[in-house]
Amino acid sequence: MIPAAEHDSVGLTTTQFVQLFDAQHPLVLAGGAQLDEVVVAYETYGTLNADRSNAVYICHALTGDAHAAGWHEGARRPGWWDTMIGPGKAIDTNRWFVISSNLLGGCQGTTGPSSINPTTGEPWGLDFPLLDMADFVTVHRALVAHLGIDELHAVVGGSLGGMQALQWAITNPDELRNAVVIAASSRLTAQNIAFSAVGRQAIMRDENFSGGRFAAQQTRPDVGLSIARMMAHITYTSEEGFQAKFGRKPQRANSSPGFGVDFAVEGYLQHQGESFLARFDALSYLYLTRVMDYFDPFSARDALAGLRAVPVRFLVASFDSDWRFSTRHSRRIVRRLATAGLPVSFREIRSPWGHDSFLLKIDTYLDTVRAFLQAEPDYRHTSWERP
Amino acid sequence: MIPAAEHDSVGLTTTQFVQLFDAQHPLVLAGGAQLDEVVVAYETYGTLNADRSNAVYICHALTGDAHAAGWHEGARRPGWWDTMIGPGKAIDTNRWFVISSNLLGGCQGTTGPSSINPTTGEPWGLDFPLLDMADFVTVHRALVAHLGIDELHAVVGGSLGGMQALQWAITNPDELRNAVVIAASSRLTAQNIAFSAVGRQAIMRDENFSGGRFAAQQTRPDVGLSIARMMAHITYTSEEGFQAKFGRKPQRANSSPGFGVDFAVEGYLQHQGESFLARFDALSYLYLTRVMDYFDPFSARDALAGLRAVPVRFLVASFDSDWRFSTRHSRRIVRRLATAGLPVSFREIRSPWGHDSFLLKIDTYLDTVRAFLQAEPDYRHTSWERP
Repeated sequence: MIPAAEHDSVGLTTTQFVQLFDAQHPLVLAGGAQLDEVVVAYETYGTLNADRSNAVYICHALTGDAHAAGWHEGARRPGWWDTMIGPGKAIDTNRWFVISSNLLGGCQGTTGPSSINPTTGEPWGLDFPLLDMADFVTVHRALVAHLGIDELHAVVGGSLGGMQALQWAITNPDELRNAVVIAASSRLTAQNIAFSAVGRQAIMRDENFSGGRFAAQQTRPDVGLSIARMMAHITYTSEEGFQAKFGRKPQRANSSPGFGVDFAVEGYLQHQGESFLARFDALSYLYLTRVMDYFDPFSARDALAGLRAVPVRFLVASFDSDWRFSTRHSRRIVRRLATAGLPVSFREIRSPWGHDSFLLKIDTYLDTVRAFLQAEPDYRHTSWERP
Repeated sequence: MIPAAEHDSVGLTTTQFVQLFDAQHPLVLAGGAQLDEVVVAYETYGTLNADRSNAVYICHALTGDAHAAGWHEGARRPGWWDTMIGPGKAIDTNRWFVISSNLLGGCQGTTGPSSINPTTGEPWGLDFPLLDMADFVTVHRALVAHLGIDELHAVVGGSLGGMQALQWAITNPDELRNAVVIAASSRLTAQNIAFSAVGRQAIMRDENFSGGRFAAQQTRPDVGLSIARMMAHITYTSEEGFQAKFGRKPQRANSSPGFGVDFAVEGYLQHQGESFLARFDALSYLYLTRVMDYFDPFSARDALAGLRAVPVRFLVASFDSDWRFSTRHSRRIVRRLATAGLPVSFREIRSPWGHDSFLLKIDTYLDTVRAFLQAEPDYRHTSWERP
């Protein structure tokens, strides 16, 4: 089932499920609410070494899932970060034991707003508690503990995934030696929030949203969710990338003008909107985007106290054509960390493909991640020593 | 009714209506279709001089209308370009006779897809013929002829308005001496088209769109139209402008997190979406955006032959923070015109407010337009002489 060209794939993978919290050991959220049942979907690639020191944790972006690498039986595409993870690849599964889980609040196996509320026996809907970046980290940490690992070699993520890596390093620096924060932000701008807000409006004002109780009514706000996705997708690509790929090409050579799919870029967007429906849930879209809106980890008083005591080595990377989370966002993260004396490498990578570059096979980018993960920690230029 | 601060206003204005095409003299569109009844809404400001040589024609942008300057009785805001047009202003009504009309296909008095189809007695809906930039110009020219004017001192417009000015200069250069093309494009990019396409999708997939026959069903696709507007509005503002105006300010000091209007930028966008419904029509939104998608005037064979014979003097202006129609779009127009030896002035204006800067009171911008309109034509640096 694995194409010959994918000989460097981790091969067939399957998603596993584990219940990490229950009524005896509930998940207490940052906002104070409590979840009595949290199941987590995850995958692992590579082999944990004897001293359990080679684990790398992957955090996914808004619409990702646990299936980061390799091939599911019968699938037509590999995991979403198969360009990055595999034998001999940047996150080399011959060397690292890679863990990838679906986010709390997500919709690909981990408990989220479309899961059953054990109290009512119905899907949670908007009764699911609001989440915080710290909650994602709490659940990730529970999975790491479940796997018997005390310290991770690295936490790696792009976009929302990079935000989790940053949060984890700030709140629990003793649990990771390295953090890779790619195309992320420590503080969304008004424009960032605006784009997500319009997407949420499209979903919530879809007549089939039904106040979030659409599952009980056997409907789905598909129109709103696909509109949200199409709009967001524009912001994940650069104008330059769109222009190179589509320009003003017509969808069909002989199509007559109208309000259908006249231009190829329209056909592409519609496909993006439609195919998204098969793998994503409108409620998860609301919950996960809102976590990003509120993320602002450096604003907490003495936010970097923990990191000052136990420094984590950082790689912060951005893409020059990314206008959703531009290099300015990454530079802000670098500035904050560097000001605290932490070892931070920063790299702006040239790529015409915008925000979604973090998912693509770009050699300079992959090589940067590879080199960072393989380097021996070097704290000579800082006044900090990791215990 | 006119606030004291508006002493430089053209004062009270009213929109007039004139039927310019009828069954005996139908409007034949560029696409071949024919309209047997076209009414045009327009306003004029200032006085036409004795030799009828001081007329300036204003072309509005996507969501504009005939009411460009002054105050309607009882209105709380002046016309949409009152910063530009008035006694002593950049388009000085003490000097120029200003004409402003609502576009064909629009919804503020000029015939459009929500007008009654004389054949059926019902609103046109999607049976209204597709339009072309040339059709806007045809109707503008009919209004100019109706007013007894042979030659315009200038045609001026921003965004879609600038595209009309460009089209007019290309197809009928003998009818205007000057063209002011602000924040416009001669060829939309894939990203430009993509944003409009998603807006149209939001409208057409609104359950109340009803295939465009919503008027007969006494409904309106208000959700879709407001989503389209909110999304478009983000693209009319710069990230910098949004950040300066809203940043991460909460909507209310004590609001608790949720999926409502938590951030001030969300409240602003919702207001934009809602207030738009009172003045705009979903069908017009479809028709007018599609005209922009297809606009590509320089692609026609020997497109500039007419302008080479009768040169028009051009001012092309862009705003440095405009990312909807960036300076690159304006430079392309300048390049094409300059290559044909036409007299073109170009100015990129500094402004943090993005595409909508063309509507704002920015002194360097207004002064540029004023100076251009008042300058005596000077063809010394070209090989062309206007007859």
